[in-house]
Amino acid sequence: MRVDGQSFRTIWPDGDCVRIIDQRHLPFRFVIAELRGVADVAFAIREMQVRGAGLIGATAAWGMWFAARESCGDSASLLRLAHELAATRPTAVNLRWAIDRQLTAIRQALDPVETAFATARAIADEDAEACRRIGGHGLPLIAEIAARKPGRLPVQILTHCNAGWLAFVDFGSATAPIYAAHDSGIPVHVWVDETRPRNQGARLTAWELERHGVPHTVIPDNAGGHLMQHGRVDLVLTGSDRTTRTGDVANKIGTYLKALAARDNGVPFHVALPSSTFDWQARDGLTEIPIEERSDREVRWIDGEDEAGNLVSVRLFGETSPAVNHAFDVTPSRLVSGLITERGCCPATEEGILRLFPERGATASSF
Amino acid sequence: MRVDGQSFRTIWPDGDCVRIIDQRHLPFRFVIAELRGVADVAFAIREMQVRGAGLIGATAAWGMWFAARESCGDSASLLRLAHELAATRPTAVNLRWAIDRQLTAIRQALDPVETAFATARAIADEDAEACRRIGGHGLPLIAEIAARKPGRLPVQILTHCNAGWLAFVDFGSATAPIYAAHDSGIPVHVWVDETRPRNQGARLTAWELERHGVPHTVIPDNAGGHLMQHGRVDLVLTGSDRTTRTGDVANKIGTYLKALAARDNGVPFHVALPSSTFDWQARDGLTEIPIEERSDREVRWIDGEDEAGNLVSVRLFGETSPAVNHAFDVTPSRLVSGLITERGCCPATEEGILRLFPERGATASSF
Repeated sequence: MRVDGQSFRTIWPDGDCVRIIDQRHLPFRFVIAELRGVADVAFAIREMQVRGAGLIGATAAWGMWFAARESCGDSASLLRLAHELAATRPTAVNLRWAIDRQLTAIRQALDPVETAFATARAIADEDAEACRRIGGHGLPLIAEIAARKPGRLPVQILTHCNAGWLAFVDFGSATAPIYAAHDSGIPVHVWVDETRPRNQGARLTAWELERHGVPHTVIPDNAGGHLMQHGRVDLVLTGSDRTTRTGDVANKIGTYLKALAARDNGVPFHVALPSSTFDWQARDGLTEIPIEERSDREVRWIDGEDEAGNLVSVRLFGETSPAVNHAFDVTPSRLVSGLITERGCCPATEEGILRLFPERGATASSF
Repeated sequence: MRVDGQSFRTIWPDGDCVRIIDQRHLPFRFVIAELRGVADVAFAIREMQVRGAGLIGATAAWGMWFAARESCGDSASLLRLAHELAATRPTAVNLRWAIDRQLTAIRQALDPVETAFATARAIADEDAEACRRIGGHGLPLIAEIAARKPGRLPVQILTHCNAGWLAFVDFGSATAPIYAAHDSGIPVHVWVDETRPRNQGARLTAWELERHGVPHTVIPDNAGGHLMQHGRVDLVLTGSDRTTRTGDVANKIGTYLKALAARDNGVPFHVALPSSTFDWQARDGLTEIPIEERSDREVRWIDGEDEAGNLVSVRLFGETSPAVNHAFDVTPSRLVSGLITERGCCPATEEGILRLFPERGATASSF
């Protein structure tokens, strides 16, 4: 996507290192950071310089290029570094998927470092291409709603967290159909949940949409139900950090509440994801998907820009009150109207998913 | 309630003026402010130096004492000042209720100023007494859950916004049964929704509970559904800013989402309110209760304490992204397990409510 007229992906190799947009500083500062080894990559994922399903996977893939270099052909070292990367975020399944794919490729390679580089590049390119296709497959969903609306009233889409191009290598998952609709002249307006505690909606999604010229409004996470009750949302569209083969969707904490409101008000609730986000082993999202618990500091402190334009952290409530910070929740498949993948749309059921991904049928061996 | 060993109400007369706790500075500073006339009172309500159903009513009642003084017996002036006060917050029904009651009292009075003073004092005392009774009527609800729990595991209660003693003259509505349970030795733990955008949960409810020694944890508003899915909430207990005679509950934005999650997980959802919060004219909350829209600045900016202990405002996202700020939403009565009033508990139905308030039956004249 373009930032101030220049084309960017969220991650790219540059000589010996890998460059990323350090997302902790957006929307206040546009900072490019440099990763020089596995430790840098682990820090970048854990501290959320990079975040989002696809981008975590791509970053881990580039991390495995460093791991191949740092392990110097020693398979025990390689595995140790792979474990170090895998431990950075527990819920995002793209992380493990990318590391597994790299391990398989590196172990079969004559030149492990060169193979790791080629595999990382392939994972990043495939992520961008998958998101581009998701945009194409999701576009008719928005076009159909637009066709039913009188005049040129915009299609009202609510999204939670950032499943935009900043969460992937390019295009995004939930945003890809939105960008496709906007670019094809369909009027859209996006309600952007601010997405506490880290405000990825207000900070990243709003920034992305604004840069691309897509009309949008930032709302507190509390507001979506009220808007749906009053007919002001036509479609809820989110991403996913892990989706079971049965269609249960782990996504940013609070997604489940929006799915409940969508169901209560007859609003379609769709989830966009590349197939790398499926956990083909998991059948029950509530019991089988580990939910990351992050530092309570992310709830207690927040940063922003003061009147003078300085970046400042402020504490929002008393030090003596405990806080907890679960990063994700699980939306049961029964609340999901449909999934949008790079191969097309399907119901959030095992049968529907396997119709698009028949090669995964065998994984259900226990049934 | 007690603050650092000293007994406080949220509002009290002092000579010619009225004193309040200026809640905008909590939990960082405990500031007592002085109101000296109708303009001060209107500012205090609009800018949320005071907020919360009962306290808005009591403050308006004291404002009418100033109005009686400032109008010097001129009934047109009195009415103009009453309108000025009534226009400060559109959703809170206690505001209009208190002003109407004062107007009736003042118009019949030989000494309007003295009568207005006595009526304000009565409204404040009745509010505190109603909340005390709500505590007594709600206590068995918590005691029954405690009795069903193994060992001495705490009863897990989730609350949204501040319906504590800071929202009333004393005791609070939603918190009254919690304080009563805690004081009677029943172990309780409160999940405190931070309640964006103004964070009344994190700033006021957590402060109250901490001062009273009630175990609690602050959570982002997004977290409640996840906690309920995992059996970590036994009861949701909120207040209300306006409740229809049919049991539809207007309360802080986001309450509806918690009611949906409670229903989806079989968790009881109760609303505590003094009868002054009923809107006896309204039958359909979604269409008849006006929802206040406040400045987008409250979404875009937040204040807190920096590392050095200074109070600082920071901007959370870009200036160029629009934001909206609806202050309340309506939870339909079908999602409300029951109401707790100063006269006892009842179902959230017209029949149930009128059984406790039979004198209001006649108001349903249009049916």
